[in-house]
Amino acid sequence: MTQFNETELTEAVVKSFDNTPDPRAKFLLQELVKSLHDYVSKTGLTFEEWEYAIDFLTRTGQKCTDTRQEFILLSDVLGVSMLVDAVNHRDRDGATQTTVLGPFYVGEHKVTAHGTDISPNNLTGERMFVQSRVTDLHGKPLANVPVDVWHADDDGFYDSQKANYDEVGASARARFITDSDGRFFFRTILPCSYPIPTDGPVGEMIVQTKRHPMRPAHVHFLVNAKGYEPLITHVFMEGDKYLDSDVVFGVKDDLVAKVEPRNEPEMPDGGKANGQWHLMSYEFHLKPG
Amino acid sequence: MTQFNETELTEAVVKSFDNTPDPRAKFLLQELVKSLHDYVSKTGLTFEEWEYAIDFLTRTGQKCTDTRQEFILLSDVLGVSMLVDAVNHRDRDGATQTTVLGPFYVGEHKVTAHGTDISPNNLTGERMFVQSRVTDLHGKPLANVPVDVWHADDDGFYDSQKANYDEVGASARARFITDSDGRFFFRTILPCSYPIPTDGPVGEMIVQTKRHPMRPAHVHFLVNAKGYEPLITHVFMEGDKYLDSDVVFGVKDDLVAKVEPRNEPEMPDGGKANGQWHLMSYEFHLKPG
Ligand SMILES: [Cu+2]
Ligand SMILES: [Fe+3]
Ligand SMILES: [Fe+3]
Repeated sequence: MTQFNETELTEAVVKSFDNTPDPRAKFLLQELVKSLHDYVSKTGLTFEEWEYAIDFLTRTGQKCTDTRQEFILLSDVLGVSMLVDAVNHRDRDGATQTTVLGPFYVGEHKVTAHGTDISPNNLTGERMFVQSRVTDLHGKPLANVPVDVWHADDDGFYDSQKANYDEVGASARARFITDSDGRFFFRTILPCSYPIPTDGPVGEMIVQTKRHPMRPAHVHFLVNAKGYEPLITHVFMEGDKYLDSDVVFGVKDDLVAKVEPRNEPEMPDGGKANGQWHLMSYEFHLKPG
Repeated sequence: MTQFNETELTEAVVKSFDNTPDPRAKFLLQELVKSLHDYVSKTGLTFEEWEYAIDFLTRTGQKCTDTRQEFILLSDVLGVSMLVDAVNHRDRDGATQTTVLGPFYVGEHKVTAHGTDISPNNLTGERMFVQSRVTDLHGKPLANVPVDVWHADDDGFYDSQKANYDEVGASARARFITDSDGRFFFRTILPCSYPIPTDGPVGEMIVQTKRHPMRPAHVHFLVNAKGYEPLITHVFMEGDKYLDSDVVFGVKDDLVAKVEPRNEPEMPDGGKANGQWHLMSYEFHLKPG
């Protein structure tokens, strides 16, 4: 049998993977064939559209470098990354919600003392004091837990996106170790909402489909306590205008932090405040694992 | 609403494309989102599998050059290319079946006289005489029709794959113009079955899934008559052992040509034969368009 109608063609391709040694790989490939074929059949995809897709995928692959991953960005804006996150965290049991790591984590950060200003060179951003705590699911504080923190500056860029990152080093990026009460705190600036990179094929798609490229302002956290599931997440600033339309669909209600404007002359640790500042409060609850 | 369960997440992503100006693009993107999300949900795709997919797609894009298209190859071995061909040629009305153009067409060929040996430098291949005819759906001969022909040599390579192609020029590649009876004929060698390139991510997948990389021996034809649908196809050699398992699913029963071993001292045009030769016969039937 070599003459295929559309259904027989799909069956023949599925069958061609029958001898795949790894059963999970076999399942994933055979389901992929069915999905792709179903898509082509039901849309009646034309040659021109197929050619467009081939070219788009090729350009997406060729846009990738050591420091840029355009295929992850594509997965992000199609909501696939957050869906993979969701299907792998179906049962949270009250633990803090997860999100994707994102492209701006650069590996373990440098341990920094509580209260440190991690954006000392950023003179235009509004000042923010972050107070946080790490507990288990019953509220028991977890001590000595390393917490990596990173966020964009008030131009919407991460330190690692800048040309002079190698000389200047980390900014708005640090590691804190929780105290005996599970607490840590630090100073920084209010992060900004920022656009995903729009100079590649993915950005082109966002523009052509009249979506906006913005992510609401957030701070990334990676909380890694012994005996608990590592928590990768980010926490959003209450009131941001993009909370309901994050271009990568990363916002979850539980991940929006209270951020209050304050004008007390002292910050919570007794340090002096210079004019208006913001107080961000958030607690992390870890799941055993 | 920002807190998504899996279904709500899919709906939110679909909705994000609601303002796409082009209605067909909107439809294709929204169906793509549904297909991708359905795949992730039903397979319960893990992070490691998602990362593998991102890396595979990236490497596929980066393997592409001016002369190599690894994403088309991926589409081919997943049967997607032939399915796109099928959904765009649902109604053949007795016209010759179509296939994909393939990566070795290099643009309009040089017009060559009937009877010419188009593989004169290939001394090891078995000799073949090809006799063919172009008609409409009622058998009426079509005269003055340009027919581009190309095939692999007896090592399984096309002329254009060779490093010295620029100096040596076309081999087993030519254009013939049909005579008043719609006929054309030429000499060449019997083409070989050949493997798709296996030094990239697609070849890696073929090896890991225990598929073979072979295409059954064939000759490509592009028949372009005024007033008729251009016909892109290839014609396979009767008896090839890969006819039932073409790695790119391109074989159709109607495209298998009669190829007979002969030992008459003269070929059909009266030219002298040197020992055994093969006679390949095939007719093309074009659809108005
Ligand atoms: Cu058959
Ligand atoms: Fe971020
Ligand atoms: Fe070929």
